[in-house]
Amino acid sequence: MNDVSPQAFIDALTGYQKTAALKAAVELDLFTAIANEAGDLERIAGRVQAAQRGVRILCDYLTVHGFLQKESGRYRLTPSTSVFLTTSSPACMGSIVDFLASPEIIALCLEDPASLVRNGGSPGLGTIASDNPIWVKFARAMVPFMAPTAQGIAKQVSAWPKPPKRVLDIAAGHGLFGIAIAQAVPQAQVVATDWQAVLEVAQENAGAAGISARYHTIAGSAFDVDWGKDFDLVLLTNFLHHFDPPTCVQLLSKVRGSLAAGGRALAVEFVPNEDRVSPPFPAEFAFVMLASTPRGDAYTAREYEQMGRDAGFAKINATPLLPSAQSLVVFE
Amino acid sequence: MNDVSPQAFIDALTGYQKTAALKAAVELDLFTAIANEAGDLERIAGRVQAAQRGVRILCDYLTVHGFLQKESGRYRLTPSTSVFLTTSSPACMGSIVDFLASPEIIALCLEDPASLVRNGGSPGLGTIASDNPIWVKFARAMVPFMAPTAQGIAKQVSAWPKPPKRVLDIAAGHGLFGIAIAQAVPQAQVVATDWQAVLEVAQENAGAAGISARYHTIAGSAFDVDWGKDFDLVLLTNFLHHFDPPTCVQLLSKVRGSLAAGGRALAVEFVPNEDRVSPPFPAEFAFVMLASTPRGDAYTAREYEQMGRDAGFAKINATPLLPSAQSLVVFE
Repeated sequence: MNDVSPQAFIDALTGYQKTAALKAAVELDLFTAIANEAGDLERIAGRVQAAQRGVRILCDYLTVHGFLQKESGRYRLTPSTSVFLTTSSPACMGSIVDFLASPEIIALCLEDPASLVRNGGSPGLGTIASDNPIWVKFARAMVPFMAPTAQGIAKQVSAWPKPPKRVLDIAAGHGLFGIAIAQAVPQAQVVATDWQAVLEVAQENAGAAGISARYHTIAGSAFDVDWGKDFDLVLLTNFLHHFDPPTCVQLLSKVRGSLAAGGRALAVEFVPNEDRVSPPFPAEFAFVMLASTPRGDAYTAREYEQMGRDAGFAKINATPLLPSAQSLVVFE
Repeated sequence: MNDVSPQAFIDALTGYQKTAALKAAVELDLFTAIANEAGDLERIAGRVQAAQRGVRILCDYLTVHGFLQKESGRYRLTPSTSVFLTTSSPACMGSIVDFLASPEIIALCLEDPASLVRNGGSPGLGTIASDNPIWVKFARAMVPFMAPTAQGIAKQVSAWPKPPKRVLDIAAGHGLFGIAIAQAVPQAQVVATDWQAVLEVAQENAGAAGISARYHTIAGSAFDVDWGKDFDLVLLTNFLHHFDPPTCVQLLSKVRGSLAAGGRALAVEFVPNEDRVSPPFPAEFAFVMLASTPRGDAYTAREYEQMGRDAGFAKINATPLLPSAQSLVVFE
């Protein structure tokens, strides 16, 4: 009974403090300053233009939680902090704060968490108008987080015996998935759908990637727009988890009807094991869906298989997209 | 480089989700329901009057984070969850949610965390009027958390060669520390100071403990009230950390002037090591003070020693109050 302790409860209950500390550090670009100022407190405070006392307390807190090391009063980045949280690093993903720790998402979780459970869901972000700037902010925020996964999928797709020529990217957001495929498959033409304001972000990214001429957009809801036919590949990235199974089946049926012979749909998803409590990241993702959607979920491979069959697909297969916490679900 | 990963960053950044899940579970009294309904999802949902889907997602989330176990679809409490989070347990501390995860404290941390660092502090709760019901809520919330520490100190004090007869409890809050000493030392008379509304909570607790006749109160700020003289023991529990060192010295001087010959002051405090990054709980506490006070901190033993000497004390000694994360600082 020696390990019976309230410590884990208190640590998790005060989780919002970790959120606050990391938000502050990213906003101040603290990690870059620590690297550039050799971990010297006075110089770091000068560079981030903050009170030395505030910087000291924040750096100590981040050291306690493993994001920094402290030796003889000097702070040092850990390898992970250096790679993922300094702005000079190509893998920097500080911007995900703007989505994962945005005031809007935090409020959905913290305003009345018991009600989320009582009601089994929430109106969530579904009530936010399609032209609200929040969608653009979210689309931009997740770019560095999704880029490696998009590259990985594009590499797989370009190695297919018959790489896709017509690609549809549903709810494309930042557009990274379709754009990566367009870069990897020179003959591919991409059609992206999303809200109009978000498609402007995708077009911007397509321009930066040098594939604008093969990048086309259709504004509107995935459930309403006529996106055309004869696609060799349809992308459904981080989209199905927002809906209940009947709605997913409805969308998958529409997707299937738009595929050319031999075409496939790919979903990028959080897919927990059948026990729904492992692996940790995909399993805990269901809670975010409880807080931010009316009926979304983290579906298991078996559930995706059932939805795929109900939509008329013959073969459905889910495989982990390591090292990310997501899986690739192939419908064909 | 295999352990270079953004996982710890994402986990900490989404810490507010853990707060939300535990708030929901405590408000619904979920853990008690799991114990009483043998971990059966349908029956648990019935007992807590919540959607089965919401309960399933919450229970899975709590399993991922180690508060439950799941086997063949049934949930089971861990020993720690059972002891500290079921309402039938005498050690239940679910109520600390009302303080540690109150909307007021969360807002202080999350509303603009970078500004806390820039300014090196915050107006915090200091701007809340003394008759605001929040102080009563906070005083009640922390009772189960502080009770074991209060009992431990009372036991030490009652074993002194000359147990104290006149005890002053400054910013007494729930009053537990003074009350425990009154219970352990039958000849002790206790004077408690705090805001008037909070003292009513302390008096209620003194009544329940059967020591009302030896419990006296003086309403007002510790810095302003005349609390009398010739105390054998002055308690300063969880109070000094709200202030900067000069203010602590000022208060400690006033305390010293109120002691009888041979009298002592005891502070219960979070005291990190000199490196300020260990042990974890006392070290991270400084961040809460950054968010909720203008100049408070988690002071080291050396800093308390300096403040004590500056206030005229000859001997200052800090010892851990295991198994809690706090320390007892004795000024004599």
